[in-house]
Amino acid sequence: MTPTHIEHIGIAVRNLESAIGFYERILGLKCHKIEELPDQKVRAAFFRIDRITIELLEPVDNDGPVARFLEKKGEGMHHIAFAVDDLEKSLNEMGEKGIRLIDTVPRRGAGCMDIAFIHPESAGGVLVELCEKRNEK
Amino acid sequence: MTPTHIEHIGIAVRNLESAIGFYERILGLKCHKIEELPDQKVRAAFFRIDRITIELLEPVDNDGPVARFLEKKGEGMHHIAFAVDDLEKSLNEMGEKGIRLIDTVPRRGAGCMDIAFIHPESAGGVLVELCEKRNEK
Repeated sequence: MTPTHIEHIGIAVRNLESAIGFYERILGLKCHKIEELPDQKVRAAFFRIDRITIELLEPVDNDGPVARFLEKKGEGMHHIAFAVDDLEKSLNEMGEKGIRLIDTVPRRGAGCMDIAFIHPESAGGVLVELCEKRNEK
Repeated sequence: MTPTHIEHIGIAVRNLESAIGFYERILGLKCHKIEELPDQKVRAAFFRIDRITIELLEPVDNDGPVARFLEKKGEGMHHIAFAVDDLEKSLNEMGEKGIRLIDTVPRRGAGCMDIAFIHPESAGGVLVELCEKRNEK
């Protein structure tokens, strides 16, 4: 497998509105969507720059993964998502190579994507997401 | 100012060779350069995906910024660099808006880039770099 591009970057923030302010008023990007993602227990704001989406993630629940990240590491970049052509095959390949996967099979993510996370332990400390647009096959 | 694209993502790692292993053998990306960056006190490995460079950064000195980041937060994404057309103008605009800048004037970075960092305090916890290719003006 080789990812085709970086699909998005997830950034953990304590206060969504304040962070949106930086990306809109200071960087000049445009927030095109704010959405709650219940399975990740966050409210997310989406920005587009070139081909990449920036997702700002504010926890809506104290026991979600982003809340735990904030508690441990503070605000900052939370995960990076690489687009792949065949997610299931990529996960199988990684599993065979002994990579620790958070999701061994694809699950539904936001924006018509199937997604899976690799454990940071197997990825140099970075939470890596792989994603594939649904219905492209 | 509005950045044109994300130029690179910097990732702090404890062991460059081990991290290169993940990006090459598992993700299938190709490391095209390893270089020491004395002013940042790191050894860096560079990968390209689509238009974006991934920089893996291993400290070569215990008192550099990446070493301090690792001590405080552990391995993970360290900074995000946005390409702008006019770095000096962007910094002036940000200064006028009260943004806390680490570099108030551009300085020379790697790869024929002029660079400047915005303090994470003013950027929702993320260390943001702005960069401009030299000699484009």
